[in-house]
Formats: sequence, C-alpha cells, structure tokens
Amino acid sequence: MSEHTVSSYDEELSGIAGRIAEMGGLAESIVTDAVTALITQDLDLAQATIGRDHRLDDLMHDIEMRNVLVIARRQPMGQDLREIMAATRIANDLERVGDMAKNVAKRVIAIDSDLKSKTLAIGVEHMTELALAQLKAVLDAYTRKDAEEAVKVRERDAEIDAIYTSLFRELLTYMMEDPRNITQCAHLLFCAKNIERIGDHATNIAENVYYMVTGKRLLDDRPRMDETGVEDKENA
Amino acid sequence: MSEHTVSSYDEELSGIAGRIAEMGGLAESIVTDAVTALITQDLDLAQATIGRDHRLDDLMHDIEMRNVLVIARRQPMGQDLREIMAATRIANDLERVGDMAKNVAKRVIAIDSDLKSKTLAIGVEHMTELALAQLKAVLDAYTRKDAEEAVKVRERDAEIDAIYTSLFRELLTYMMEDPRNITQCAHLLFCAKNIERIGDHATNIAENVYYMVTGKRLLDDRPRMDETGVEDKENA
Repeated sequence: MSEHTVSSYDEELSGIAGRIAEMGGLAESIVTDAVTALITQDLDLAQATIGRDHRLDDLMHDIEMRNVLVIARRQPMGQDLREIMAATRIANDLERVGDMAKNVAKRVIAIDSDLKSKTLAIGVEHMTELALAQLKAVLDAYTRKDAEEAVKVRERDAEIDAIYTSLFRELLTYMMEDPRNITQCAHLLFCAKNIERIGDHATNIAENVYYMVTGKRLLDDRPRMDETGVEDKENA
Repeated sequence: MSEHTVSSYDEELSGIAGRIAEMGGLAESIVTDAVTALITQDLDLAQATIGRDHRLDDLMHDIEMRNVLVIARRQPMGQDLREIMAATRIANDLERVGDMAKNVAKRVIAIDSDLKSKTLAIGVEHMTELALAQLKAVLDAYTRKDAEEAVKVRERDAEIDAIYTSLFRELLTYMMEDPRNITQCAHLLFCAKNIERIGDHATNIAENVYYMVTGKRLLDDRPRMDETGVEDKENA
C-alpha cells in the first residue's frame, strides 16, 4: 500500500469524524432553539426550528454512504471497522435527536399559550441543560476515544430520568387541579418525554463509543426508571 | 466469476431477506401481545412481552454485520447495494417497532387497572389492527419488490393518524370529566402514541422499499397530521 493510499484512508476516517462533529453541533443548536421557543412561547422561533433538521438528515445519509464506500474500498477490520460502524450508528442517533427537537417545536405551536407555571419552565430548562451536557460530553468522548467518559455519561442518564419523573408528576397535579390545564399539560408531557429521550440517545452514543474503543459491549445493568417504574426507551 | 461464487452471493442476499422476514413476524407478534395485554389488562402477558424484543435486537445486529461483510467482500453497486442498505434500515425500523411494543407492555404494568371505557379499548384495538396490517403489507411489498404497494402503504398511514387524533381527544375528555382518570389516561396517551409510531415505522420501511426498487426517493408531499396539527415523528 502506498503512503498516499494510507494517508487518503486516514482522511476518509477523519472526514467521517468531522461530519459527526458537525451533526453534533447542529443537533445541540436545534434542541436549544426548540426548548427556548417552548419556554418563551416564541412561535416564530418554533417555526424556524422545524425546518432545521433537514441538514441533519442530509448529513446522516452522507455519512452512511461514505461509510459504505469506505467498507467496499478498504475492507476494514477490527478497530477501523468498529469506528466506521459506530459513526453510522451515532449519526442515526443524532438525526433522531433532531427529530425530538422538531417534535418539541411543533408542540410549541400546538400549545400556543404561556406556560402555566414557572416551576414547570425551570424543570424543563434544567432537564434540557442536562441532556445537552450529556450530548456534549459523549461527543467529546467520541472525539477523544475515551471509553471511561462514555461509561460516566451512561451512568448520568439516571439524573435526567429523575427530573422527568418529577415533571411527569407535576404535570399530572396541574391537570388534576384545573381541567383547563389538561390540553396544555398533555402536550407538555410529550415535550418532557422528547427531552428525556434526547438523554437516551446520548446513552446510545455512549454505548457505541465504548464499543468502538474497547470492542466490548457494556452490560445492561444500569438502573433505568421513570415515572411509576415505566422505562419508555428506544434501543433499550 | 465462477457459478459457485454467483450462487453464494445470491444466497447471501436471500439470507438477509429471510432474516428481515423473521424480524417482521416477530415484531408483529410482540405488538399483538403487548396490545392484547393492554386491552385485557393481563400483567403476566405484559411481563412476558417485555423480554421478547431481545431477539429483534440480536437479529438487527446480525443483519447489520452480514451486510457489512457482503459490502466488503462483493463491493456491490446499484440495485444490489440498494438492497443491502435497505435491509439495514428496515431491520432498524423493525427493531424500533419492538421497542414501541415493549413501551406499551411496560405501561400496562404501570396502569394496573381495567380500561375505563370500552370505546377506548375499541379505538386502541382498531389502530393496532391497522398498524399491523400496514406492517404486513409493507413486508410483503419488500419481499415482492413492489414499489407501487409501498406507495399505497405510505398513503394509508393517514388513517392511523386520524384514529390517533380521535383517541387523543377522547383521552383528554375522560381526563376533564373526572380527575381520577388522569393518571391512567396519561399512560394511555403514551400507549396510543407508541402504536401510532408503529405506523410511522411502516411508512419508513415503505420509503426504503420504494428506494430499493426504483433508486428514487419518494417526495415528502404526504399530508401528515395528528391532534391539533402536531406531527410527532421520527425519521420525518
């Protein structure tokens, strides 16, 4: 294999990592905008957020196609193959983070009224901050190939689940207090669920980073619960 | 290329299609059990359903790994490459259908009381029947490489969305009538959403079948709405 070929292979791999970083930055920004729109009831921002995930879709398809070409051209094995497969899966999770944010933005338009409670807004904001911090931490772990940090991210998801549980209960309480709150709170239940699931996607990414670096799967011994013992997960 | 090699390649491709068929059958059966457990409030069946999606996860990872090996060995192009990529994506959607069913089964345990309304049970059952019929139709379209049928499946998703919308409204009405219904109905909102999303996964599969057969992407001009104009979608 000529040096040129080797260098071009490295470029292919780093190109994929660069696109994952771009997707990560974009996903974080869309989540931030969607939740800001929710908290401030900014319908224009919500509307603007809804279209922004197309770029995530495009990047995901681009990464997928590049990875197929790299596999066909190079027949990678071991660590290299794990890197490529992890990138495909991480791109998929980041695209779904964008979907979650879009769902929240659409609910903002459906709600179309101020949030009934300041406590509620603080809860949603706090859960979003944690979810975004998780996303940032796991993408750093991906870039640095840091399996230990990936494990930590996965363990911290329990904090997000705990906040979700308390928000779920609070929303039910508002519904019981006044039937006029019910429609708004029903939409907010789904918003909270969408944000909680951003945390799940960060966990999925953490598991893929761990596998990419170590070649081993994390055992599923993590305690995961939300309200009344319901874990509502994907890829779980 | 020797005849043996050609035949072995065909075997690889048909092996992948066979595994998709197995995943499809399994996903349908898990959905049926989860919703039966919900309607009849059968906690044992719900508990038994929760563990059954592991096999879907295993099959998905197996399909993914086989596809990578086929791509590395054969460097497929055109129709062959599209078939392999479609299989990976379809496996992913079927695995998520299993997750949706598992979410419903977990809610059954959280609800742990009879459904308040016969109408509600009929609505949930009807939506599930439609979602399962969609899943079956789209997997037939995949086996027969029938792009036209895939388009029809995609169009029919609007029926499931319409039932979901009416269930959503009905659930809010029950909540408003009696605050004691609120907790159960909140869980049922999520159950209904999970079933509605099984329809979305059938739609995703339909789009992948269409792409696999024709090499073209279906344009996103399908009208898709649920309650109060909120489309809550993944991969949308």
